[in-house]
Amino acid sequence: MSNLKKHKFPHSFSTESGFTFEEANVAYHTWGTLNERKDNVILVIHALTGNSNIEDWFSGFFAKSSPVNLDKHFVICMNIPGSCYGSLNPWSINPDTQEPYRGDFPVFTVRDVVRFQQELLDHLDITGIELVLGGSYGGMIGLEFILMDNRIKSACLTAMGKSHSPWAIGISHAQRMALYADLKWKGGFYEKDYPPSEGLSAARAMAMITYRSPKNYQQKFDRNFNKEKKVFEVESYLEYQGKKLVDRFDALTYDRLTKSMDTHDVSRERGTFEEVLGNISIPVLILGIDSDNLYPTSEQKELAKLIPNAVYEEINSPYGHDAFLIEFEQINDALKKSFII
Amino acid sequence: MSNLKKHKFPHSFSTESGFTFEEANVAYHTWGTLNERKDNVILVIHALTGNSNIEDWFSGFFAKSSPVNLDKHFVICMNIPGSCYGSLNPWSINPDTQEPYRGDFPVFTVRDVVRFQQELLDHLDITGIELVLGGSYGGMIGLEFILMDNRIKSACLTAMGKSHSPWAIGISHAQRMALYADLKWKGGFYEKDYPPSEGLSAARAMAMITYRSPKNYQQKFDRNFNKEKKVFEVESYLEYQGKKLVDRFDALTYDRLTKSMDTHDVSRERGTFEEVLGNISIPVLILGIDSDNLYPTSEQKELAKLIPNAVYEEINSPYGHDAFLIEFEQINDALKKSFII
Repeated sequence: MSNLKKHKFPHSFSTESGFTFEEANVAYHTWGTLNERKDNVILVIHALTGNSNIEDWFSGFFAKSSPVNLDKHFVICMNIPGSCYGSLNPWSINPDTQEPYRGDFPVFTVRDVVRFQQELLDHLDITGIELVLGGSYGGMIGLEFILMDNRIKSACLTAMGKSHSPWAIGISHAQRMALYADLKWKGGFYEKDYPPSEGLSAARAMAMITYRSPKNYQQKFDRNFNKEKKVFEVESYLEYQGKKLVDRFDALTYDRLTKSMDTHDVSRERGTFEEVLGNISIPVLILGIDSDNLYPTSEQKELAKLIPNAVYEEINSPYGHDAFLIEFEQINDALKKSFII
Repeated sequence: MSNLKKHKFPHSFSTESGFTFEEANVAYHTWGTLNERKDNVILVIHALTGNSNIEDWFSGFFAKSSPVNLDKHFVICMNIPGSCYGSLNPWSINPDTQEPYRGDFPVFTVRDVVRFQQELLDHLDITGIELVLGGSYGGMIGLEFILMDNRIKSACLTAMGKSHSPWAIGISHAQRMALYADLKWKGGFYEKDYPPSEGLSAARAMAMITYRSPKNYQQKFDRNFNKEKKVFEVESYLEYQGKKLVDRFDALTYDRLTKSMDTHDVSRERGTFEEVLGNISIPVLILGIDSDNLYPTSEQKELAKLIPNAVYEEINSPYGHDAFLIEFEQINDALKKSFII
């Protein structure tokens, strides 16, 4: 068990796009104890709809099979800026107007997200990070972290690539179009109690499809018909998943974080991918998921090829992209086998 | 060149769901001349957003490489009921109310669509159909045609399967959720000049992704940024494709035809797939597309295995599901090789 903590920045924070927040705070959870040298840190980064409470969405990380030892390690996870789980986000109050930012809230690039998280690491005087771990959006941020922070000693990245592909950008944008089709969206200037729920729900339904595979849907639903609701079970499931996200998530967050993912490109203003990734010297464990249709294994194999000290392992799963949140036994095994922690 | 013709049914038409149309008409195009025996027919069936003018969307069917010979064959294509291209559809006037049906318009099952098309074939006294040809939704209707009409002598079916998979139903339903998220949808009772354009546009954007492949998007767009519009080229493309469909298509049609596709199941009330498809005796050419993510080749291979006199050929294409509308040289070659016409 860990409680949500908050750290208020002692100074302003500016995004790459030039937007300055005079006030900002980062929400986070920690487990274990920071040692005297302040270098026993495992930094976990959550994905699009996740939050800083790893126990909520990745409990296997604390399972018996896990290489994490809370007598030894200090685990930290921060809520990504823009996310509705406690850090600075579109519903934070703009001190200039005393109103929430809403549609004025900027897109944080993946590099902004790293700098934002570094604020807390610096505040805690962290001197060494044994491992950074993340999947999907969390993996993109993790990869940028390696390039931006020399405190990191090793990394485990899964279900992403060297940059956000046009395929993934297109999928995200079609979802955003569904969000904008909901007239309640109002360019992001909606009231918190009158949000574009149907648009967010449709976006989530589309996402749920890209997170899984045809085979998984066949096994799970076949053509079973729900006689009560008069719809196919797969339709009922997608409606349910849409509503479930609406109950726990925010449309502006969904928009800003998917756009943040689209900024992922480690080569930007740095040189070629070969040069940039070729300069990484720490050991990196790259995990691909054989059934991932959103970030196919070709992307992780490419990363492993471009990073000199990288090892590629494949997770075998029927769960598609979602496997990075489900197959923790395989992830734990790969971590232990890699000896990176 | 061919002109749109219309045939008004001499009697009412009822759907399997029990909805009766007192008046109905079918819009169609023909090429070539019907012979005296009225058995030189090639029946082409269009897909979801297609129409009866084959020259519009499958011009290669009349190319030099085509096995079609207009001195010999009589080609006919009818607009599917529910479609906004001329046949009975949600905007047809209900003689009882003198108003368009709009949201009252029922879903036609794939079998309803076959019976609807048979009205014209019967009216024209067609005695033999040399070939029925269709892809995607058109292929589903084609497969039902074989089972419901013994005038058919051979078939070419592509990019579909023995029933609409939960994967494909889910993809369609996520698109419908985007449509319904547009408040202008109003349960299908919108005004024709105030349609849910943003919802339809978002649905189309989602569809465009499932019609292609990650590799195709990579080659076509990479991470190219449109500086003028300040969006990635892939985003600009999806917006454009959405608008393009809105300009030529109707939201109610999109809803009703995608639901019609979901009814596709040749086994319904007939026995097992093995029994039903095992009874087909005519030669059937089944074409799979190696990059089709919506109806993967496993579905076409399965069909070819279950239909005794079937041959499976694979189209190699970077264009995903869309290849059935693009790779006409390969389709023509396969048709000629099969000697079915």
